[in-house]
Amino acid sequence: MKAAVWHGEKDIRVEERELRALKNNEVKVKVAWAGICGSDLHEYEEGPVFVPSEKEDPLTGDTAPLTFGHEFAGVVEEVGSDVENFKSGDRVAINPTLTYGNKPEDLDPYDGFAFIGLNTDGGFASHANVPESNVYHLPEPLSLQDGALVEPTAVAVQAVKEGGLVFGDSVAIFGAGPIGLLTIMAAKAAGASKIITLDLSETRLEKAKEVGATHVINSGEKDPVEAIFDIVPEGVDVSFEVAGVEPTFKQAIETTKPRGTMVIVSIFAKPIEWNPFQLTGKGVRITSSIAYTPTSFQQTIDLMASGQLKPNAVITDQIELDNIVEKGFEALSNDKSQAKILVELSGEK
Amino acid sequence: MKAAVWHGEKDIRVEERELRALKNNEVKVKVAWAGICGSDLHEYEEGPVFVPSEKEDPLTGDTAPLTFGHEFAGVVEEVGSDVENFKSGDRVAINPTLTYGNKPEDLDPYDGFAFIGLNTDGGFASHANVPESNVYHLPEPLSLQDGALVEPTAVAVQAVKEGGLVFGDSVAIFGAGPIGLLTIMAAKAAGASKIITLDLSETRLEKAKEVGATHVINSGEKDPVEAIFDIVPEGVDVSFEVAGVEPTFKQAIETTKPRGTMVIVSIFAKPIEWNPFQLTGKGVRITSSIAYTPTSFQQTIDLMASGQLKPNAVITDQIELDNIVEKGFEALSNDKSQAKILVELSGEK
Repeated sequence: MKAAVWHGEKDIRVEERELRALKNNEVKVKVAWAGICGSDLHEYEEGPVFVPSEKEDPLTGDTAPLTFGHEFAGVVEEVGSDVENFKSGDRVAINPTLTYGNKPEDLDPYDGFAFIGLNTDGGFASHANVPESNVYHLPEPLSLQDGALVEPTAVAVQAVKEGGLVFGDSVAIFGAGPIGLLTIMAAKAAGASKIITLDLSETRLEKAKEVGATHVINSGEKDPVEAIFDIVPEGVDVSFEVAGVEPTFKQAIETTKPRGTMVIVSIFAKPIEWNPFQLTGKGVRITSSIAYTPTSFQQTIDLMASGQLKPNAVITDQIELDNIVEKGFEALSNDKSQAKILVELSGEK
Repeated sequence: MKAAVWHGEKDIRVEERELRALKNNEVKVKVAWAGICGSDLHEYEEGPVFVPSEKEDPLTGDTAPLTFGHEFAGVVEEVGSDVENFKSGDRVAINPTLTYGNKPEDLDPYDGFAFIGLNTDGGFASHANVPESNVYHLPEPLSLQDGALVEPTAVAVQAVKEGGLVFGDSVAIFGAGPIGLLTIMAAKAAGASKIITLDLSETRLEKAKEVGATHVINSGEKDPVEAIFDIVPEGVDVSFEVAGVEPTFKQAIETTKPRGTMVIVSIFAKPIEWNPFQLTGKGVRITSSIAYTPTSFQQTIDLMASGQLKPNAVITDQIELDNIVEKGFEALSNDKSQAKILVELSGEK
């Protein structure tokens, strides 16, 4: 089959690749749609970050080259002999996270984790074989395209849960990329009354407004701290750091009210210079989210099925696998108006 | 009267100073004992840090030179006309924190705060005039020396409360200076089952064992992270950063179990270089404590009166006011075996 395979930095190739044999506990999925994630882009632009390139991944045992794509959905084509809950023809979304499974789900990822589509073959291909425990039924109102959006949406759902957001709270979201936009939607669905979103790009801020931000601030034009205090003089209840850089890290703490919570959602690529006294003086608590629990993944599907979350507003392009480098990775690198680009795989509807 | 007055860095003078007039809402305290705090030392060694030297303190309206000393206790000698709950002869401990008082007590300090003995005249003198709301009755079993220890002990009580410590939890305490030692005692009194304490000084670690540490680790001799995991393979439930430097900040996060809490107790003098991804990967939450609420101050008195907290074990010397520079500040600067040095003021017992 044809697949988009990561070979190295700036070297993703659409090439012929064999689907590895289906295991007894696995489901063979005919992939319909797969989204390109910020992590994929990161691996393309300056990887390997998480991709096992030098030595085998401790959890999957695999090494690059690997088929990318961890945000995907499709239709079950075949099931292994031990599979109980799926049959051919079922519409499914994939939870790509793999953990050791020795702990309760909220602790499990901290023992180590891997992703289908980063640490082992994923969904940028016509087919993928996936353990049954990573496969979720896609209920009727949701399309297969919606299915490909469950994964990034679950990241936002987990972040909002981690923030302990209470009905009516005010929030600030630093960064209006795809995860930032989805965090706006999740915060709104969770009942946030003020959703202040900050970014340097007007295009992204336009999008932020479309998907539910009540206030948008261009941090390049206004002092973001002053601008937030103009809206909420005491600071916001919860802030979300979705940009992953030093200035937004500090601004997020500064603009959260005393005893409020700052959630680190982004993956920081570099160290920052920071005085922890900022926390002492502000009385803000810091926490972080990493991916999502299986419970949050299912809740995301449920919230999408009920219409409380409509993540398809983040889709900015739909492309074919052959064009994934130029119209996918390069477009995301160069065009800040791009948010979520979906890749059509098997043409399955 | 004679007082120890801060004039500048390395310039604390024992000199004649007039007690300012007693206000209607104030209590005149004949000071018995006053402790030298790490903050005092900080102001002596490299101040001004918090002392208002250039312009008036926004809360007290005062500027240096100022009488230092914010950990003190004594006997009421006179009361202002509006004072209701104290009379001449009452034995009292002073809560030196001043806030604007516009918010609930847990939020109030984040609007700004000042200290009697740092931002206005304090207790290194025979007498101090203090607002009634900062004065607490010292119940019978407690001596006036105990009274001078309430303040630093309340810092430790607040830190342990902030950590959300649950009966039976394991804790790690980074730094065995006076506040570290008091945190050991507070953690023990709160029911911690394992109290691991780390420092670079053997003398301090000896003291740590005396006051309740179940395990001590010399971070200069052993890898602190490995040494803690040898004791608690999953990490501790709560860690306390009481050293205020980059290595201990990172070690405290690293050795706290996923979803556990790291409490910043110390005041960081300098920025650190740090990658927030450490939090994402570990799943640790960071919080901080600043001084103590009035509730915690009273609780500290109660816990001392009941014998659950016996902070007098941290006293390493008792000196006279005339010797405060040489036997107090200089001794604390140069001799790591010193923990809490108490200054005898009026000779009141």
